[in-house]
Amino acid sequence: MKLYVIGIGPGGAEQMTPRALAAMEKSDIIAGYTTYIDLVRPLIGNKEILQTPMKQEIDRCVKARDAARNGRSVAMICSGDAGVYGMAGLMHEVCADYPELEIEVIPGITAACGGAAVLGAPLIHDFAVISLSDLLTPWEKIEKRLDLASQADFCICLYNPSSRKRADYLQKACDIMLKSKAPETPCGTVRNIGRDGEQGEIYTLAALRDAKVDMFTTVFIGNSQTRIINGKLVTPRGYENK
Amino acid sequence: MKLYVIGIGPGGAEQMTPRALAAMEKSDIIAGYTTYIDLVRPLIGNKEILQTPMKQEIDRCVKARDAARNGRSVAMICSGDAGVYGMAGLMHEVCADYPELEIEVIPGITAACGGAAVLGAPLIHDFAVISLSDLLTPWEKIEKRLDLASQADFCICLYNPSSRKRADYLQKACDIMLKSKAPETPCGTVRNIGRDGEQGEIYTLAALRDAKVDMFTTVFIGNSQTRIINGKLVTPRGYENK
Repeated sequence: MKLYVIGIGPGGAEQMTPRALAAMEKSDIIAGYTTYIDLVRPLIGNKEILQTPMKQEIDRCVKARDAARNGRSVAMICSGDAGVYGMAGLMHEVCADYPELEIEVIPGITAACGGAAVLGAPLIHDFAVISLSDLLTPWEKIEKRLDLASQADFCICLYNPSSRKRADYLQKACDIMLKSKAPETPCGTVRNIGRDGEQGEIYTLAALRDAKVDMFTTVFIGNSQTRIINGKLVTPRGYENK
Repeated sequence: MKLYVIGIGPGGAEQMTPRALAAMEKSDIIAGYTTYIDLVRPLIGNKEILQTPMKQEIDRCVKARDAARNGRSVAMICSGDAGVYGMAGLMHEVCADYPELEIEVIPGITAACGGAAVLGAPLIHDFAVISLSDLLTPWEKIEKRLDLASQADFCICLYNPSSRKRADYLQKACDIMLKSKAPETPCGTVRNIGRDGEQGEIYTLAALRDAKVDMFTTVFIGNSQTRIINGKLVTPRGYENK
């Protein structure tokens, strides 16, 4: 049977694609992290729910896979895009020995795109997306990526900039980026993208170092051309006026 | 009056958000590049159309701005996401002297996310998005970004990999990436994402060098962990099994 891995976007129905909604309607079971299940609950009627808490992603995918092996169609939902720090990869991994299962990945609006729209247009040109979570990635690797992406003058979007155990990670990241990017580089943060309490803030890179961020915040750092226009963070489309 | 800059996603109505559709319905004028206007024509009824050919982006934004200054609401549509090589930045730039105009950017599914879903899950982990078009960016800057992103072991997504005048750019880009990435690195291309004739192909980085690509193709290059699972391109979510 079919396994859908679905990006539901920021959360509200108005930013979910008809394709994502149709796949949920076609499924027998809706699977996902409890918070995301709550976001789609008004849309899914009385479907069977398969929910597991945070950090039990492998277990969640295995249960979905086994339900599909038993002839049920399953929609595994992810916030944002299923393919950007989402479950699309893990689902393929846990189904590696079951090539008869058909997996369909359905994209959604990821926080890089949703948050950029709130701030203006910070990611118009070449950009890098980096997660500051070192749960599954060595911190040295994250530091190297921050350093080289800054040297390359990429716009940078940071996912998972902070958590209780990693309160100073954004500060560390800013210190690395400040080796190649100017302290006055325009930056921004967006909290609760596309949800109640959505809030964007503009900073310089020097000030971003001390910004308050949490696990619901996405962070944007400009390139050498990025500027503030009428309170919005805007990266020019090219270098024609340099 | 209101200026919407709207990402319509890959093209079909099933991958456009209700928010994008609602903004078009609220607008007096639909503006955009001719090809994108044709994609949304079935959805917009008899609205006034403001279309300009390719490479007349500034003119298109100025006309939209002036219509808004004359009291009309305008929806400027972009394929994919409005904030990733889209018109959101340029619209803010041409409206810099008119802070009374309200610009709302509405995100959409960009080719990085739409194409990744076709291939499997290549962008699950940190990634860089780079355009190979040197119309507005010096080629040396593009080379530097390719080189440093490869050194940083990013997954890489390439927009605009080729055109008639730049037939060998993907080959040049692969040669740069091959300095840091292994020749057997799994890669993929997707042509006509989300449209008729959508087609994904899997390559090694060595073979990608000679792949046929055009302006409707998006290219994906894995990181050191990316592998092929049941014909799909999959980047693991972390480095736990390294």
